[in-house]
Amino acid sequence: MTISSHHHFRNGDKVANAVFAAAAELGVKELRWFPSAAFPCQAGLIDLLENHTIHHIEGSMNGPLGDYCSAGKMRGMGVLRSHGGRWQAVQDGEVHIDIAVLAAPTADPFGNANGVTGPSACGLLGFGLVDSIYAHHVVVVTDNLVPFPCIPWQIQGNNVDQVVVMDSIGDPEKIVSGTTQLTKSPDRLLIAEMTAQFIRDAGIMKDGFSLQAGAGGTALAFAIYLKEMMKEAGVKARFIRGGSTKYLVEMLEEGLTDYILDGQTFDLEGVRSMREYPNHQDTSPFTSYNFHGKGCFASFVDAVVLGATEVDVDFNANVVTHSDGRLLHGIGGWQNCLAGRCVILPIPSVRDRIPVIVDRVTTLCGPGELIDVVVTERGIAINPKRADLIDAVKGSKLPIRTIEEIQNEVERMCGGKPEPPKLGEKVVAAIKWVDGTVIDSVRQVL
Amino acid sequence: MTISSHHHFRNGDKVANAVFAAAAELGVKELRWFPSAAFPCQAGLIDLLENHTIHHIEGSMNGPLGDYCSAGKMRGMGVLRSHGGRWQAVQDGEVHIDIAVLAAPTADPFGNANGVTGPSACGLLGFGLVDSIYAHHVVVVTDNLVPFPCIPWQIQGNNVDQVVVMDSIGDPEKIVSGTTQLTKSPDRLLIAEMTAQFIRDAGIMKDGFSLQAGAGGTALAFAIYLKEMMKEAGVKARFIRGGSTKYLVEMLEEGLTDYILDGQTFDLEGVRSMREYPNHQDTSPFTSYNFHGKGCFASFVDAVVLGATEVDVDFNANVVTHSDGRLLHGIGGWQNCLAGRCVILPIPSVRDRIPVIVDRVTTLCGPGELIDVVVTERGIAINPKRADLIDAVKGSKLPIRTIEEIQNEVERMCGGKPEPPKLGEKVVAAIKWVDGTVIDSVRQVL
Repeated sequence: MTISSHHHFRNGDKVANAVFAAAAELGVKELRWFPSAAFPCQAGLIDLLENHTIHHIEGSMNGPLGDYCSAGKMRGMGVLRSHGGRWQAVQDGEVHIDIAVLAAPTADPFGNANGVTGPSACGLLGFGLVDSIYAHHVVVVTDNLVPFPCIPWQIQGNNVDQVVVMDSIGDPEKIVSGTTQLTKSPDRLLIAEMTAQFIRDAGIMKDGFSLQAGAGGTALAFAIYLKEMMKEAGVKARFIRGGSTKYLVEMLEEGLTDYILDGQTFDLEGVRSMREYPNHQDTSPFTSYNFHGKGCFASFVDAVVLGATEVDVDFNANVVTHSDGRLLHGIGGWQNCLAGRCVILPIPSVRDRIPVIVDRVTTLCGPGELIDVVVTERGIAINPKRADLIDAVKGSKLPIRTIEEIQNEVERMCGGKPEPPKLGEKVVAAIKWVDGTVIDSVRQVL
Repeated sequence: MTISSHHHFRNGDKVANAVFAAAAELGVKELRWFPSAAFPCQAGLIDLLENHTIHHIEGSMNGPLGDYCSAGKMRGMGVLRSHGGRWQAVQDGEVHIDIAVLAAPTADPFGNANGVTGPSACGLLGFGLVDSIYAHHVVVVTDNLVPFPCIPWQIQGNNVDQVVVMDSIGDPEKIVSGTTQLTKSPDRLLIAEMTAQFIRDAGIMKDGFSLQAGAGGTALAFAIYLKEMMKEAGVKARFIRGGSTKYLVEMLEEGLTDYILDGQTFDLEGVRSMREYPNHQDTSPFTSYNFHGKGCFASFVDAVVLGATEVDVDFNANVVTHSDGRLLHGIGGWQNCLAGRCVILPIPSVRDRIPVIVDRVTTLCGPGELIDVVVTERGIAINPKRADLIDAVKGSKLPIRTIEEIQNEVERMCGGKPEPPKLGEKVVAAIKWVDGTVIDSVRQVL
C-alpha cells in the first residue's frame, strides 16, 4: 500500500512517525511512503526501512533519509518530484494513494481542516490537498478538534473518511519559528543586495510586478534589500509568492504588495498574517505549480529567486545532491518556479572550499534554458540566451561577467576543479521533471 | 453538445441568452442546455427550442420554460435535479458538459473568478463550481476584469480555458435586490411564528444548534420570529445555512450565530456580509449537498424550513408542479435539505381556494419519511414516524393536529377535494432523486 503525508509541520512533525510505528506494530510490510517531503525528525524511519515495514520513499528526502538513500541502502528506488510534479503524478494516476494521513492543526469531526489555528498552527495545508482529493482513504489527524464547521476549510471534510485526535501532532517550535534567521555572512549579504539591484536595474521591479522569494538566509536578506529599493522608487508589487516570512508580511502590511500567494508559512508572522488578512491567500500546488492543469501561476512570476547546490557553465542547476553526490535536499517547488519570467540563482561561488560553478552538475534538476541569472559574490552571470536581460542592464554598475570567468577565478583560488563525486553504477533515485518524465537519476555514493 | 450555465444571477442573467444567441447565429443545432436553473428572463430561449438550436433543457425551469415543457412542446425530455444531484450527475459522468459558460462578477485574465465584487456582484459562484472542475471547455465571462490574482478565487483559473469580457453580464437589480420582501399576509405571519415556536418548544433551538432558512416571504418572517426567541432565551446557533438575506446577516452581526454557510446570496446585504466576514462562508453543492461524496453537511442541520406546492397525507411533498400539473418551479436544494434532522414545511393550507394538503401529490419530489412537520395556519401536523417530536411538544401550547384533520377542515371549507390536474400520457420531464435515480415523472398538461 501507499501511505501519504504532508510536510507542513516540517521538522516538527509527529504524525508520520506515529503512522509507521502503528504499521510496524500491525506487522504490515513493504509500504510505499509518499510524503510531500521527509525531514530529519523522521530519521527514525530508517529502522522501519531496514525491517521492511517501509519498502521505499517517494518524495523529497531532506537530510538523513536522503543520505540513507544515496548510500544505496533503500531497497526500492527513491523518486523525487517537485510539488507540482507530485500533484501531477497523483492527478494523472501515476501514483495511487491508498491512505492519506493528513496532520491538521484544527479540524472538525466531519474532517474539515485548516492550518491557521490551534497549538500546532502551520498556516495552510496545501501540500496535502491533492492527497485529500484523490486518495482512496483519507484520515485527518488533529490535536485541536472544534465543532463543525471548521472554517476556513482548507481541507474539505467531504473528501475525508476519518478524523483522529492525538494529544499532540507536532512540535510547534519546529513547525514554525518565531524568528527566521537572516544571514550574517558578508558574502551572502552582498549576493542578496546584488540580486535586488539586478531586479531593479533590469527594469523588472516596476508597479504591478510579481516576485517569488524563499526563506533561506540569503533570500530573506534579498527581500529586505528589495523592499527598501521598492520604497525608494515608490513601486508596489501585485503579488509576492511565498513561503511567507515576517519580511513578506511587513511588505503586505506596508502596502508594498497587493497580495501574498502563499505555499507555506515559514514563521509565526506568516501564520498570523494568513489568519488575519484576506489578501494573504493560501495556495496549493494545483494553483501554483501543476503543469498538467490548464496553466498555473508559476509562469506569471516576474522575478524568481531560488537556491542551488551547484550550477554549471550551461546554467543547468542542481538542488538535490551535494558535490560529493549525497542526496540531502528535496526539489520542493524549485523546478516549478523555473517557469517564471526571470529566474535568478543567488549562490556563493564557493562552499567549504569547493567551487559551486562546475562543468557539469552532479544531478540535473533544472535545465539551463530556464535559468536566467546566477548571482555570486564575484559577479553576476546572465544566461547568453537572455540577450534581453543582457541589454537591459547594459550601462548599469552591476558586475556582469560570463559564468566561465567566475568559474575560472574560483578554480584558481581553490586550486583547480572540484573532485568529481565517487559514484557507483546503481541508480538509487529518479529525479522527475514537472511533467512526470525523468530528467536525471541519482547514483549510489561509494 | 452540452452547454452549461449557472443561475447565480437569477432573473438578471444576460449570459445564457447571449450564448445561445451566438449558437443560433453559428447555426449550431440540437444543443442540450444544462443550467443549474433557468429563469423567466430566459423565456426568449423558447424561440431557440422551436428552431432546434436547443434540443432540450436539463435543469430546474422556473416559470415560462417550465410551462413550455409541461405543455409538451419541448422535443427532448426535461430532467430536473437538485443542486446536489446536479453535482452528482456531473461527477459520476452521467452528464458530460462540453462547454461551461460561467458568468463571473469579477475575474482575472487567467480565469480566477468570484462573485463578491464588481457591478454584477452576486455573492458567490458555487453553482458553477462543478462545471468549472469537470467540463471539457470552461469559459468565464465577466464585466469586471482585474489583474491576476482575482482573490477570492471561488472559481480557479487553473480549470478555465478562456476569459471573455462583456459590457454587462447581468442586471444587478434583478440579481440581488436591496430589500427582500417580508410577507404581509396575516396567515403567513402566523405560520412563520408557529414554525419558530415549534423549533423552540420541541427543544431544537438550543446553544450550538443549526438552522436552514430560505428567502421566501414566510421564511424571512420565520427567521425574524426565531431570532427574537433566540435572543430571549440567550441561545446562539453554531451555523445558519443560507440563502443569505439581511435578516441572516443581522443574526451574524448580533452574535446569534457563529457562521453563515451560504449557498447563494439573496440580497445586497448578503453580498456585503460575504465580502466582509470570514465567518460568512461561501459553499458549493459539493460541501452542502453532494450525496455521492463522503458525506455532506445537509445531514447536520438541526432545523430545516422549506416550502412546498403540495403535501399529501403521507407527508410526501411536491415542489415543482402546481395542483394544475404545470411545471413552474425548480428543485433547488430542496431535496438535499430533506436530509436534515427536523424538516418543517410551513405552508398555507389553501392557495387560490385550492387545498394544499392532498391525498397524493401531483409530483413526488420528497418522500414523506423525510418530512417531519407541516405547519399551516390551521395547525401543526407532525409525521407519525417522528414519535420523538410528538413527545417533545406534548404539553406545549402548539396547535398539534393530525394532517388528516387539517385536510378535512380545509376540504369542508373549499367545498371538497381539489380537482385532479388534467394530464396526458406523455412524460415531459423526469424528477431525479439526490442519488441520480428517478423518483417521479411529470406528464404533459392537457
